[in-house]
Amino acid sequence: MSTEVVDSSPAVNLVTQHVAHPLAPLTGDEITRAAELMRSVWPSNTDLHFKSITLEEPPKAEVLPFLEAEHNGQSAPSIARKAFINYYLRSTNKFHEGIVNLSSNKIESNVRLGPNVHANGDAEEIVAIEKVALEDEAVQAEIAKLQLPKGTVVISDPWIYGSDGINDDDRMYQCFLYMRDPLNPDEADSNHYALPLNISPVVSTETMKVIRVDLLPTGADNTTSETRPYKIKPPNEYIPEYQELRTDLKPLNVVQPDGGSFQVTQQGTSHVIEWQKWQFRVGFNQREGMVLYDVRYAGRELFYRMALSDMNIPYADPRHPYHKKAAFDLGDAGAGLMANNLKLGCDCLGSIYYLDGVISTDKGGAVTMENCICIHEQDAGIGWKHTNYRTGRAAVVRSRELVLQSIITVSNYEYILAFIFNQAGEVMYEVRATGILSTQPIDEGVSVDFGTVVHPGVLAVHHQHIFSLRIDPAIDGQNNRLVYDEARPMPRSDFNPHGVGYVSNETVIEKSGGYDLDFDANRVFKIQNAAIRNPVNNKPVAYKIMAPAFQKMLADRDSYHFKRAEFADHNIYVTKYQDGELYAGGKYTNQSRGGTGVRSWADRKDDIVDEDIVVFVQFGINHIPRIEDFPVMPCEILKVALKPVNFFERNPALDVPPSEQRINQSALLSETHAQPSVEGKIGEKGEVCCSSKL
Amino acid sequence: MSTEVVDSSPAVNLVTQHVAHPLAPLTGDEITRAAELMRSVWPSNTDLHFKSITLEEPPKAEVLPFLEAEHNGQSAPSIARKAFINYYLRSTNKFHEGIVNLSSNKIESNVRLGPNVHANGDAEEIVAIEKVALEDEAVQAEIAKLQLPKGTVVISDPWIYGSDGINDDDRMYQCFLYMRDPLNPDEADSNHYALPLNISPVVSTETMKVIRVDLLPTGADNTTSETRPYKIKPPNEYIPEYQELRTDLKPLNVVQPDGGSFQVTQQGTSHVIEWQKWQFRVGFNQREGMVLYDVRYAGRELFYRMALSDMNIPYADPRHPYHKKAAFDLGDAGAGLMANNLKLGCDCLGSIYYLDGVISTDKGGAVTMENCICIHEQDAGIGWKHTNYRTGRAAVVRSRELVLQSIITVSNYEYILAFIFNQAGEVMYEVRATGILSTQPIDEGVSVDFGTVVHPGVLAVHHQHIFSLRIDPAIDGQNNRLVYDEARPMPRSDFNPHGVGYVSNETVIEKSGGYDLDFDANRVFKIQNAAIRNPVNNKPVAYKIMAPAFQKMLADRDSYHFKRAEFADHNIYVTKYQDGELYAGGKYTNQSRGGTGVRSWADRKDDIVDEDIVVFVQFGINHIPRIEDFPVMPCEILKVALKPVNFFERNPALDVPPSEQRINQSALLSETHAQPSVEGKIGEKGEVCCSSKL
Repeated sequence: MSTEVVDSSPAVNLVTQHVAHPLAPLTGDEITRAAELMRSVWPSNTDLHFKSITLEEPPKAEVLPFLEAEHNGQSAPSIARKAFINYYLRSTNKFHEGIVNLSSNKIESNVRLGPNVHANGDAEEIVAIEKVALEDEAVQAEIAKLQLPKGTVVISDPWIYGSDGINDDDRMYQCFLYMRDPLNPDEADSNHYALPLNISPVVSTETMKVIRVDLLPTGADNTTSETRPYKIKPPNEYIPEYQELRTDLKPLNVVQPDGGSFQVTQQGTSHVIEWQKWQFRVGFNQREGMVLYDVRYAGRELFYRMALSDMNIPYADPRHPYHKKAAFDLGDAGAGLMANNLKLGCDCLGSIYYLDGVISTDKGGAVTMENCICIHEQDAGIGWKHTNYRTGRAAVVRSRELVLQSIITVSNYEYILAFIFNQAGEVMYEVRATGILSTQPIDEGVSVDFGTVVHPGVLAVHHQHIFSLRIDPAIDGQNNRLVYDEARPMPRSDFNPHGVGYVSNETVIEKSGGYDLDFDANRVFKIQNAAIRNPVNNKPVAYKIMAPAFQKMLADRDSYHFKRAEFADHNIYVTKYQDGELYAGGKYTNQSRGGTGVRSWADRKDDIVDEDIVVFVQFGINHIPRIEDFPVMPCEILKVALKPVNFFERNPALDVPPSEQRINQSALLSETHAQPSVEGKIGEKGEVCCSSKL
Repeated sequence: MSTEVVDSSPAVNLVTQHVAHPLAPLTGDEITRAAELMRSVWPSNTDLHFKSITLEEPPKAEVLPFLEAEHNGQSAPSIARKAFINYYLRSTNKFHEGIVNLSSNKIESNVRLGPNVHANGDAEEIVAIEKVALEDEAVQAEIAKLQLPKGTVVISDPWIYGSDGINDDDRMYQCFLYMRDPLNPDEADSNHYALPLNISPVVSTETMKVIRVDLLPTGADNTTSETRPYKIKPPNEYIPEYQELRTDLKPLNVVQPDGGSFQVTQQGTSHVIEWQKWQFRVGFNQREGMVLYDVRYAGRELFYRMALSDMNIPYADPRHPYHKKAAFDLGDAGAGLMANNLKLGCDCLGSIYYLDGVISTDKGGAVTMENCICIHEQDAGIGWKHTNYRTGRAAVVRSRELVLQSIITVSNYEYILAFIFNQAGEVMYEVRATGILSTQPIDEGVSVDFGTVVHPGVLAVHHQHIFSLRIDPAIDGQNNRLVYDEARPMPRSDFNPHGVGYVSNETVIEKSGGYDLDFDANRVFKIQNAAIRNPVNNKPVAYKIMAPAFQKMLADRDSYHFKRAEFADHNIYVTKYQDGELYAGGKYTNQSRGGTGVRSWADRKDDIVDEDIVVFVQFGINHIPRIEDFPVMPCEILKVALKPVNFFERNPALDVPPSEQRINQSALLSETHAQPSVEGKIGEKGEVCCSSKL
């Protein structure tokens, strides 16, 4: 391991550190070594199909002393490097997981899992499944009935099979078929989601064969009909060469003449970012993608770990096989696995720093995910402003933000995921939902109340996106509590004779569990350290959680959807920390049955007051498609913010340099513009200052 | 009147139009002529104290044919120019309002108002009140008891008196006293809100004399004590010279080498803006500040008029005289009156166009509000993206926004108000709340549940900000309806055997009234034109209203606060259009008694299906102050969005040119950055394309 310090303007390289940080993702070398070690316990001809080889994070009890020593500049205790591995014996349903100690070169555990425990899809497998589905004879025969024009390209999108408890013990994929524009078959980027077909092959991953060909209902009810000759429908392309592009948009460039204001210190696969009093460590793994560790502001601890924990996208169509559509994009595939290579100048403006990640392949190799995280600053408008109307003097600062962004493509859909830091001590997690709706065929003239026709013959079914952000807090230390404030009217009394008074009261959450927002009560959850008091007002230091309202899972409580998405029924889950409890929907979400995620952990009813707690924040959208969301949808933006409450002694952004034209170099478009005098508005016709001088 | 067309890059001037547009604000000349005409009906020595001289907007029935002719290039019917005027006979409580016809030089009406109808404060009056309060002998005597250091500067902030029904028929101001840092008395921009005093003079506007000196409660109960010698407390300054400023923030400039992408056509006091298929007219007046008229997209009508209609800020302290604090910043003063002169390069980045406004003075003159609106474009991140994982090709566009911004200073507080348009046919209204908390003295060691101690001796009381945005829609024409969608689980049945199905259903609102959001039902309000159908899916064209959740007014239903803020109890009010019903809290909010605002109009229970309707959207914050909000608060951002629903035939931003490095000119910070190959993530180790070619 080596350490490289990269200041974002003049590049400075240092090599000082030679031991991997305990929170550094596995290196390519560690991945391949772990795979070799695991292979070594099997007969030499055994073909292991690796699903994930990733850092087994050390127990927090080991990491904390390390971090303390690290931040104090003391020599840090040595912590064993370990890999978490899961794998199949290839082309069987024999699924295993184990821990490999890379420091001692020992297998610490290796067990077969199941039944009803299945691994995620991986890149190689998904490609293979597509092929199996399309090459199957029965599928080909069904496609033939469509009598498509010669040269038509049919596309297969494998979907995670989902769970309904009916003959679904084995691991399968449900494929949905589409075609490229049959009248333009050479266009490899034709939007096939505009041309869905009624044929849906099911493929077994054990046999890698089609085991069933479902025909899809295309009317208003749940009946299906024989595949009939296809009637040509218009395409609906999203790529620019098929658009009459706007010609009146002039360039807007973000120029940072002195580079960015952040510093990146690379320590092998791990990166420490420093920016505007913030410091944190960035990791990357197959499942969660970006992970932040050890987040501090001005040296004060805030969060031990933050990452998107899970997401679930249940669909509204109750008809077979659509009733099983409920994707867990992180657990079923992986935000790291699906991360885009972010091209310079397309996904961000300004001065950009890119990080690579390393993940495992199905053969036990390592692959570099190039540019899977981009780091840049952005201007977020005015940060704060006050004008003294007596003197006319305006004090104004702009809000600068630091963005760590990763973009994932989940077949048709895109998520733009970002951690955003600002100068007021706030951290935001932003999700932009974009990409292409998951579509299905619908007969002409039919409309249904569980979806929207977005193109002739194309139904986009309603669906929910429910995200779970895992926050492992360390507000001025590990022992925190979760509380909520509510505002309530004062009753009328001698103290409140006019009925206008109201109060804000705090309630301490005593037990782990699921809790909800209540906007009518202005309920605001705060993560608090009751042992540390604000020196000015003696209030406990805290960070509040600002999350938007959303409709919770609509599938009923007895449904598999509900049982599996263990986070989807509450705005907040809070648990007592246990090592390894990272994924709100459970460790294995593919064809899962529930009972292994955050709802189950919360059900321990642990005492959580002034303990090491973990908070899962849920947020989402119920996406009732509009035609404007097709063929590719304008970003729908969701944001969760964590903001200090009585943590600092004053506005932490007070020391941001003023916003000045000398620095900002803005341009004047209006000819009539006159620079203002230093007079205020109110008072400018009268006296400038109305203070009384004693 | 002349017309000037200003393209935002090469300036082109045309002079073509010679008649004022019926929606153009009054010119300075029209204001002074109107004042003269009104003066002419009074004996020559009568001193009129003008409160407002502003455009009397013509009846919509007259304007619509004008707009139709205008957009069709036909000669438009002539519409009389009229001024709305209200005024006092100076130094009396005799308040009048009238209409002056400027085309015929006739007074059309002129009536005395009251009782209990009072005008807003104006710039000159507020300055005079400050002075009266500080120069009063009783006040001076009370200040003397504080035994402040020689040279200490005491500041008086006049507050609108508010209503409690107790001896408040006359028009008054309640002043709150503060001081600059007594140890640094020459600092004119010392933050006096950090040093509140316990003395509160009440001034009559009729006599311009102090009629009472209230002493403020400073403990936990409602008792007050004699003014005692002041114990020196530390200051808490916000201006930069008192901060140790950050030194590690590097410049970030927005450069638009070809200028902005918008065009401004000036027609006297009115401006037509064209940008990215949007077209609308901008007005400005004393009360509402910015007003948008005749908003169209690609030639299709969307909104007849949009403006912030009202806001109310009730405070939580029930003790006299604080129980009366409930500001209506628009009606009590005016967003136009308080608009900041926006300095180039401080309040926005990039290429900026500034508009001036014209408002009246208390003497019947006109004053130009320079740079009171700024117009610029901003980058809003990725607009939409999709990566074809089979070919690796990413299609991505950035979202460009057009911002019309106005910033108002209401004594201690600032609001940054903006209309934001994007390329996806969306309009947003954004409020950033910043500035300084309204503070009051509190004794050492005391804490209360209706406020937060933000500095030694300083209490910031909880308060609500409740805004009302008035939207006069014209979705493809004047006859619109308000409906709402809700998503509900399907019951279990043969059609929904797994309990996962759900539907979205629409409910039509039949009668004018107040309506509420329900996030648990995913209730979404839409303004719809049922007569115009989407050609693809036959759904009625609509715009949906996306407003954040907020806690409605906490003051009880019998309180004056509740009666006066007629919009504060519902997320949505909808009325049948009537000329002149612009201000949700009623025409005169100062010391108002209620009964004249939107709640009262809605109570007509008009039929509103496929009628000319008006929608008032409420949103807000219950501000429980944090110490981080002092001495000046980081912006708290609220956003209401109007988005097309089945209004277009596809994503209207599909024709935005792709985001390309060639245009964006971003800079690479990471040395290790490698440009990606054109391969997707999934599939890159296997086959690139898994489609089946027939």
